[in-house]
Amino acid sequence: MKRRQFVGGLAAAATLSACAQDAADCGGDGAISRQTFEWSCVTSWPPKFPGLGMAPENLAARVEAASAGRLKIKIYGGGELVPPFEVFDAVSRGTVEMGHGASYYHKGKVDAAQFFTAIPFGMTNLELNAWLYYGGGMALWHELYAPFNLVPFPTGNTGVQMGGWFNKEINSVNDLKGLKMRIPGLGGEVLRRAGGTPVTLPGSEIFTALQTGAIDATEWVGPYNDASFGLHKAARYYYYPGWQEPGPGLETIINRDAWNSLPADLQEIVSTTCQAITTDMAAEYTNGNAVSLQQLKKDPNIELRRFPPEVLGLLRTIAQDVVDELMASDPAAAKIGEAYFEYLDIVSENSRIAERAYLNTRES
Amino acid sequence: MKRRQFVGGLAAAATLSACAQDAADCGGDGAISRQTFEWSCVTSWPPKFPGLGMAPENLAARVEAASAGRLKIKIYGGGELVPPFEVFDAVSRGTVEMGHGASYYHKGKVDAAQFFTAIPFGMTNLELNAWLYYGGGMALWHELYAPFNLVPFPTGNTGVQMGGWFNKEINSVNDLKGLKMRIPGLGGEVLRRAGGTPVTLPGSEIFTALQTGAIDATEWVGPYNDASFGLHKAARYYYYPGWQEPGPGLETIINRDAWNSLPADLQEIVSTTCQAITTDMAAEYTNGNAVSLQQLKKDPNIELRRFPPEVLGLLRTIAQDVVDELMASDPAAAKIGEAYFEYLDIVSENSRIAERAYLNTRES
Repeated sequence: MKRRQFVGGLAAAATLSACAQDAADCGGDGAISRQTFEWSCVTSWPPKFPGLGMAPENLAARVEAASAGRLKIKIYGGGELVPPFEVFDAVSRGTVEMGHGASYYHKGKVDAAQFFTAIPFGMTNLELNAWLYYGGGMALWHELYAPFNLVPFPTGNTGVQMGGWFNKEINSVNDLKGLKMRIPGLGGEVLRRAGGTPVTLPGSEIFTALQTGAIDATEWVGPYNDASFGLHKAARYYYYPGWQEPGPGLETIINRDAWNSLPADLQEIVSTTCQAITTDMAAEYTNGNAVSLQQLKKDPNIELRRFPPEVLGLLRTIAQDVVDELMASDPAAAKIGEAYFEYLDIVSENSRIAERAYLNTRES
Repeated sequence: MKRRQFVGGLAAAATLSACAQDAADCGGDGAISRQTFEWSCVTSWPPKFPGLGMAPENLAARVEAASAGRLKIKIYGGGELVPPFEVFDAVSRGTVEMGHGASYYHKGKVDAAQFFTAIPFGMTNLELNAWLYYGGGMALWHELYAPFNLVPFPTGNTGVQMGGWFNKEINSVNDLKGLKMRIPGLGGEVLRRAGGTPVTLPGSEIFTALQTGAIDATEWVGPYNDASFGLHKAARYYYYPGWQEPGPGLETIINRDAWNSLPADLQEIVSTTCQAITTDMAAEYTNGNAVSLQQLKKDPNIELRRFPPEVLGLLRTIAQDVVDELMASDPAAAKIGEAYFEYLDIVSENSRIAERAYLNTRES
């Protein structure tokens, strides 16, 4: 894999000498670099989209404040500078210094990256963070992205998603047959094998497709984001739980040359702020979902429904096959997948007697 | 409420003039203060205790790195500088600049603070953070601590705790009668009304009390911390779920004069690092609990048990009475408690179809 020249990094390096001279003249404590950086961050989201799009905005504002303006990051919505799904390439080749998106968008380029976002019937938000920060996950992620000249930072998590909006009732596995549903990634492949027709559509086209009957169903995120797209005005049945993405983690990716050009204090500010955004985004989603759900429940045109157990059971069986094939297709996916499922075995035993047992008691 | 003199703040203010002069001489960008601070942080934890005690250590190390050494924080274990439960007073009167502990330790001084840690059958980690950061909780917390010259920052969460270690089986509500159990706070009061005898013991004395039969049972935290105390060597039955503390949030408190003496960039570094520690501690606990639980399950002398539903039902009914009385006793507790339960009503509806429905599906 070739190492690409990083334009921003070279420009920044030139600035460095001038600033270093400045500091030496002052005879100050010398520990604080006055070097300034202006970065661009491309994202996969509509600008300032609730949750997903606010995370990079919040990240940039906080980094600028914490660095006293030494690191300014300009955020671009998907398509403003590069298309939403070309964030990885743009940051990898150094067109921009930073990106915010989801690692499973890199399917086809680096298939194994999907384990760091979400796996059907896999880890929740809390479990994924435990694996990444304390269970060895981050080391695998760094290793996977190193050939692309990228440094990854977990930055946000939407929490458990919803099953989606349907204009057909799902009463048995037969109702999946012929179902045209907007559902990307591994979840879409699972639906296909269950007899459905998965469709990939960007967020902006979902509402119309659902309203016109071009699709029978769609998953998106959860009440907070779904309501902001107006999906409840285009479908009757709102199904839960989301089995396809049980706690997707988002990522910040930084071009390695840009990262290496930062002094140690700014590196610490960036990595700590990314971790803070993970708490912040989960709080924004939990609150937003709760408030939006309350409103949706008042709408007589909407029925909140649970998928029948036999449907979830079938999807789960197929999901295991799909993930097994992913792991068999690629040595990196095999290595990371084995680590992921070994950890899931252990961590899910704890979730069973902690979160699950508690919520069942409280909600009984 | 009188405003106490803050010694550290005055010393810091003197340093400020010298540094400001320095910066002016240099003709630099002027935005970066070179002023340095050396703070002391007292805690309620044994030094470097897994999870709880590591949070302030990690906080201090990161703040020092992110500030390029301009803000150094020395961490003291409980009892090293002030006793574990005198953190609030020491920071309030400015003996030290910072403290890390739990707001429910301030019972008796500021009863309403208990809502910001944990309430029996109340909010989980994700729900509490949603309330604090996006549901109005932080504004109430700031208001509550203002008369004490303190600024609060949520900093860490242990997640759902365990019900505890028992040397008597709990098969019915009758088994609670006469039960001598180490369980502090609101949970202890609930047990008392259910016929038990709650005992308050510092962590360091729990093992011996349980082993000698001075107590029949104890709650502590969860597998990670419980195993490090060796509680599994002193009791046979490990009960779940923890009903008394379903996701206790920890706090950093900062003396307001010390806080005001920080330049804006260091304030941002501190507040963002506190929020990052919330992700980090949850990850440490989720991982530590999972690994420790796996080990405990291999021990033939331990039985993992679920509390009978009728026991949980009784405890829940009593808990509501106990919290109602707390709210009736104090206007601040009434105001904060009303906001807490109004939010719990909304947020728990979402948890029911998100985390709960998903975990039930995955673990079925």
